[in-house]
Amino acid sequence: MSIRTIEWIKNKVRIIDQTKLPLEFKYFDIKDIKTLWQALKSLQVRGAPAIGIAAAFGVVLGTKDSGARDFTQFKKELDAVVKFLASARPTAVNLFWALERMRQTAARNYRKSIPEIKRLLLEEAKEIFQEDRQICRRMAKFGASLLSNGDQILTICNAGALATADYGTALGVIYEAKKQGKPIKVYACETRPLLQGARLTTWELKKEGIDVTLICDNMAADLMRKGMVDIVIVGADRVAANGDSANKIGTYSLAVVAKYHKIPFYVAAPVSTFDLCLKRGSAIPIEERDPEEVSALLGRRIAPKGVKVYNPAFDVTPNALITAIICEKGIIKPPFEKNILKVLK
Amino acid sequence: MSIRTIEWIKNKVRIIDQTKLPLEFKYFDIKDIKTLWQALKSLQVRGAPAIGIAAAFGVVLGTKDSGARDFTQFKKELDAVVKFLASARPTAVNLFWALERMRQTAARNYRKSIPEIKRLLLEEAKEIFQEDRQICRRMAKFGASLLSNGDQILTICNAGALATADYGTALGVIYEAKKQGKPIKVYACETRPLLQGARLTTWELKKEGIDVTLICDNMAADLMRKGMVDIVIVGADRVAANGDSANKIGTYSLAVVAKYHKIPFYVAAPVSTFDLCLKRGSAIPIEERDPEEVSALLGRRIAPKGVKVYNPAFDVTPNALITAIICEKGIIKPPFEKNILKVLK
Repeated sequence: MSIRTIEWIKNKVRIIDQTKLPLEFKYFDIKDIKTLWQALKSLQVRGAPAIGIAAAFGVVLGTKDSGARDFTQFKKELDAVVKFLASARPTAVNLFWALERMRQTAARNYRKSIPEIKRLLLEEAKEIFQEDRQICRRMAKFGASLLSNGDQILTICNAGALATADYGTALGVIYEAKKQGKPIKVYACETRPLLQGARLTTWELKKEGIDVTLICDNMAADLMRKGMVDIVIVGADRVAANGDSANKIGTYSLAVVAKYHKIPFYVAAPVSTFDLCLKRGSAIPIEERDPEEVSALLGRRIAPKGVKVYNPAFDVTPNALITAIICEKGIIKPPFEKNILKVLK
Repeated sequence: MSIRTIEWIKNKVRIIDQTKLPLEFKYFDIKDIKTLWQALKSLQVRGAPAIGIAAAFGVVLGTKDSGARDFTQFKKELDAVVKFLASARPTAVNLFWALERMRQTAARNYRKSIPEIKRLLLEEAKEIFQEDRQICRRMAKFGASLLSNGDQILTICNAGALATADYGTALGVIYEAKKQGKPIKVYACETRPLLQGARLTTWELKKEGIDVTLICDNMAADLMRKGMVDIVIVGADRVAANGDSANKIGTYSLAVVAKYHKIPFYVAAPVSTFDLCLKRGSAIPIEERDPEEVSALLGRRIAPKGVKVYNPAFDVTPNALITAIICEKGIIKPPFEKNILKVLK
């Protein structure tokens, strides 16, 4: 995978600025947590796994210059950094998962010197990054076993290399299928309002030599009716204990229309995206974003001034509409309440 | 209704240039059929009923300067004009319906002088225009009887004043409900790719004092799940004899998700939009438009260069997903095959 979405280079977090794609392909070096917070908020870096990795490195950025003399003081600073980074985005649980892992790393080593704890925090962030690469590959292998030669796959948003440290989640399955010599055709929903499908998914699939066709979100059902979709695969931002899955707005609509057309609907998500503390999807906090994302595009107004807008960034797909969830530990089938616990253990 | 979408003024067709809305509200005077054809093709004037009216006036524009000495010669010129205008857009049957009505008017009066036939053609076009105004109002009354106080209505594209000579079809129902003192809330799907919902529907509903909220097309299912939609009302470009209805791409998706949520789904369409020659919706020709409409927006690229795009402008909603069709002769309920014939007679 030639795309390097996020990296730790010379004490900085280097990301691809995804708000500029596909018109400009630019790296952006982040030296401080305010800039990192802004990068998360503005979706310069996005996708649940990449958000987690960015947050982990963010903790390193936020604590590496600490002058704390003892653990109590360091812990106080660390907690403030964690709290600040946690406020960037509410839905993707990987953010909180990564921050908690960093917090635990410090807590576990409270007897060590502050420089040593800092070193261990960097190591942990790098570990989260490396793990994600392996997780992507494992998930991809499980997922690819579900695909057949010539399958036509529909996806939404970007759950690919640009959302992770490697292969991606939903798109990883497609990359692996290609590697296995299975010809695959992909339809990418453009994913209004921020067009991650049009801007990012088509960009990375084209770059990797995958046959991809762009459609507007509202065309998906028509494609299904015409027999142009065999499988839907999407990513997730948070999966509840019963399998209900939050993902980019529009995912729920795809799940409903897939059900109607008897087309299998798969969610690809690493274990870090599961939130077993939440029984049901209704408990997942859903980010609402700026109305301007809908009423303007590329800085130009597309609706009358002052028009009311509703702009939830995610929706929740109930488990009843999900055929299976693909994670790095295997393929989880219904009943999800039971099988998620079984596979994740 | 203060919006004058199309008018015949001083031997010209005056339209609101809808490609400029909502940023600019400009009239555009059309003197010749090439410009009229272009206005149809580019959607400066759009919406099935308005397309029919424009085509009727187009026949007047295309024949008024004819130097034909006899009916045979005039008929030849008229047929060429009709053929040319008919090539502008394939799906909305009102185009062919209006052109045929104009052709019949000439044919019926073949014994009259050429200037007299020209006069009768202009009269017929004006008649089509006037009829549309009355049809809108009658349809609106039938439709409004289906609404209750406080209903939340979802619609797609623009089936309003900007699509007709008066109240509109789907939006006419809403205007009438408001007139009757029923408070109504509207959610307008933005309607990618050309954003008729974002640009036109919000503009005209705001202008008329209706409570309207703009959403992206992919949010509709989520709204339904949250109980924010009581009724879906859409327009149509062609209704087959069995009730299958072609309308703006995305309509079929709304019909499927409405069915899933047990929300009534209504089509509002005048009799002129019915094509009883077609048994089923599968026979309706569907316009495919320029890929650039999807991959660029307001002239700016939103997807990688050379990306493949699928861009059907319409889809067909099968009759099984339609609760009822509202036309100026009444409300048509299933079984549509039988009841369409009964009501339209």
